[in-house]
Amino acid sequence: MNVAAVTLPQPFLRRLKHIVGAGNCRTDPADCWAYGYDNSKRHALPQAVAFAAEHDQVRELAGLCHEFEVPLVARGRGTGTTGATTPIQGGLVLSLERMDRLLEFSPDNRYAVAQPGMTNEALQQAVGRAGFFWPPDPTSSAFCSIGGNLACNAAGPRAVKYGTPRDNTLGLRAVTGAGKEIRTGVFTTKGVVGYDLTRLIVGSEGTLAIITEATLKLTPRPEAKHTLRAVYRDVAAAARAVAAIMAQPVAPCTLEFIDGNALKLAQRHAPLGLPEGAGALLMIEVDGLKAGLAEAAERVGQAAGNDGLLDLSAAATWDEAEHLWQVRKALSPALRQVAPLKINEDVVVPVTELPALIAGLDELSAKHGIPIVNFGHAGNGNIHVNLLAQPQDMERAERCLDEVFGLVLRLRGTLSGEHGVGLAKRDYVDRELDAESMRLMRAVKAQFDPKGILNPGKMLPAAPCG
Amino acid sequence: MNVAAVTLPQPFLRRLKHIVGAGNCRTDPADCWAYGYDNSKRHALPQAVAFAAEHDQVRELAGLCHEFEVPLVARGRGTGTTGATTPIQGGLVLSLERMDRLLEFSPDNRYAVAQPGMTNEALQQAVGRAGFFWPPDPTSSAFCSIGGNLACNAAGPRAVKYGTPRDNTLGLRAVTGAGKEIRTGVFTTKGVVGYDLTRLIVGSEGTLAIITEATLKLTPRPEAKHTLRAVYRDVAAAARAVAAIMAQPVAPCTLEFIDGNALKLAQRHAPLGLPEGAGALLMIEVDGLKAGLAEAAERVGQAAGNDGLLDLSAAATWDEAEHLWQVRKALSPALRQVAPLKINEDVVVPVTELPALIAGLDELSAKHGIPIVNFGHAGNGNIHVNLLAQPQDMERAERCLDEVFGLVLRLRGTLSGEHGVGLAKRDYVDRELDAESMRLMRAVKAQFDPKGILNPGKMLPAAPCG
Repeated sequence: MNVAAVTLPQPFLRRLKHIVGAGNCRTDPADCWAYGYDNSKRHALPQAVAFAAEHDQVRELAGLCHEFEVPLVARGRGTGTTGATTPIQGGLVLSLERMDRLLEFSPDNRYAVAQPGMTNEALQQAVGRAGFFWPPDPTSSAFCSIGGNLACNAAGPRAVKYGTPRDNTLGLRAVTGAGKEIRTGVFTTKGVVGYDLTRLIVGSEGTLAIITEATLKLTPRPEAKHTLRAVYRDVAAAARAVAAIMAQPVAPCTLEFIDGNALKLAQRHAPLGLPEGAGALLMIEVDGLKAGLAEAAERVGQAAGNDGLLDLSAAATWDEAEHLWQVRKALSPALRQVAPLKINEDVVVPVTELPALIAGLDELSAKHGIPIVNFGHAGNGNIHVNLLAQPQDMERAERCLDEVFGLVLRLRGTLSGEHGVGLAKRDYVDRELDAESMRLMRAVKAQFDPKGILNPGKMLPAAPCG
Repeated sequence: MNVAAVTLPQPFLRRLKHIVGAGNCRTDPADCWAYGYDNSKRHALPQAVAFAAEHDQVRELAGLCHEFEVPLVARGRGTGTTGATTPIQGGLVLSLERMDRLLEFSPDNRYAVAQPGMTNEALQQAVGRAGFFWPPDPTSSAFCSIGGNLACNAAGPRAVKYGTPRDNTLGLRAVTGAGKEIRTGVFTTKGVVGYDLTRLIVGSEGTLAIITEATLKLTPRPEAKHTLRAVYRDVAAAARAVAAIMAQPVAPCTLEFIDGNALKLAQRHAPLGLPEGAGALLMIEVDGLKAGLAEAAERVGQAAGNDGLLDLSAAATWDEAEHLWQVRKALSPALRQVAPLKINEDVVVPVTELPALIAGLDELSAKHGIPIVNFGHAGNGNIHVNLLAQPQDMERAERCLDEVFGLVLRLRGTLSGEHGVGLAKRDYVDRELDAESMRLMRAVKAQFDPKGILNPGKMLPAAPCG
């Protein structure tokens, strides 16, 4: 496949301007610069950037790139952490940030049709006024885009009760790498006609098709929420509590975990009043009708109790809940202060393997001399593993990371729960997926994108030779 | 593609016997007969039937059929209603009924690994003892198989709260049409490495791969359930109630609908004590913790109330709940009595379109002289449309059905919510799916099944010539 383009041909650029209007494309490297990176701190300069305003422009642009074999990298707000939108083979970056409208909102049918550039927060506000929400809630929800959420299948704490984008998307309008429009899925919560192209495209990181409209499944907002904080002697006790909480009938809407290393670090940043010997912490939230919620929280609190529990606090007011969240919120600034170049992974293991994961990470930390702190979405077994490497330690950190992934796979886990693969994990994918599955994925990609122009070099490692 | 096989070659039969053992295959037409039909009443005779006992046999059988280009139709318990397992091109029927074991059950991680031939009920019993259930609950759950549930993405009443098989499957072990093994998905509730082959295979009706193991996501059993019955003057009032129920924070675990024609029919079978002028009925169930459940049911009851509500009854006991379900249970025998050859569809429309759907069906019923009664899973907009045709009316019924599908698609619906396509709806699929999506589906199929041996002639209509 020859998709690398050093300079874009003049006929391509002329037609590009014709499609989106001269005012909506950039070719000056200074203008293109900002469209070459994301939150992974990786960067590659595209030859051109275009801003699409509507579906037909996206279709025409994809057709143009297909014709000229120019790499086409769709981009929302660039908040991803894996380099999935860095144009490593150059070409055209298609910014969808101006396609940010809510096209339709049907409260009675519980769906909304959004353009990909709409931010998660703007969507939540629009549907929230009628008493609904869209479950995916990445930390970056204030500025990340719906299209990016779908491309990465990006979730957040609420996934433990309400699922990921794949569970909350009914259908798509999209454009393939051959510039063809497709409509996938349905406007209803059931539908079994044809193969499930919707969920195939969700999580495909812009390598199969570019989403131009998404029909999103909405959920009525709960009436109230109770917050609990449980502090444990060690990770094993916290993991036992997670399994017990997930086995009783009240599904928590948040079940966040913080390990002992992270607690120490957070306390360095601000005193948090944790009991002596705190080795792990769970933040638990239960939502629903006001009636019965206290009993539901109590039931979850009972499940949280075991012989390793040091303290269980329940928030009676919103202020108290904020106070309980203080530890979790102290983490990010503390981490930034300690290691600006930290490697932040988001591995997943079955809940019962959390103690083995954390113990194994402690061993790897000691072996490689890289501090590791861990926190994350315990109900899903989805842990943010932070390697706090200093600039001079990056090589050692990479070796450590390699062993972290090996550990996760031995524990029957997966390399990523919500960040995606992008560039960062591309070369590890073949340790998780079998060869025939990868061959099928490449073959499927070739049907959607016969010339391999859509986000080339991402998600799947290059096919083996011969 | 030349996959039709009139008689199977001797070398094929020898190797077939070698793979599964002579005692585990049948070639006598009398023995094969029973493996040629399902609950659609369609029939086609296979040349051979094999019973696999383990994954490796399935893999070798698929490799053998691939080599000899013999059609291979995987089959669970034959409870499907669309003819999806009838071997219309002959070949080998692979019965998975003996692969019926629970391979692993991890309550703490909330998953079970089942073989495809295990019945839905056997699974429910096995995991129920530890307080869990697997949400999909087709009416045939006592005898239908997990593999069939996955192949058709077959759901049931509980889907309104708990989702379909696609929402409740974590990963698969499967064999492609080239006889290759793949493992898809994860053992956790999150995972974004690679394309979502799990959900692509779920619902693909045995045309992409044969599932040999499924990792199923389990849910803790609710503690209690409340049952309500709401009777309305007309369908419009019932539909308004459905939208209102689905828009408040208490998700019902059942929200079933019965139209006026069905009520009349059921009352002919047995007097049901419905109020005068009953034009539609909703059966509503709410489950959860005992604490707060009465308030939750009351909230749902409030949402069910509008100016078309004639009667709202709540069951105080299990016996009373049974009594409320009497109408629903009277339907099937009544339908069988009236029209043994009834055509039972399972179309879906957005909830707000239910009145237009039922009104349109009444018109089509009058136009074609075919009685139509409707009931189904209203929370999902999934309605079982029953054309009560007599043997001499079948041609007229087919013309009527054609217009029913047209109506459903005009209302932004889908042709099937849970039965699947199989043979019955294959030739209507291109009215719902666009040409490029169908081209992609066929291209994807060709990657999984290069010689087109897996369940040929099902689900997708033949490709257009030229």
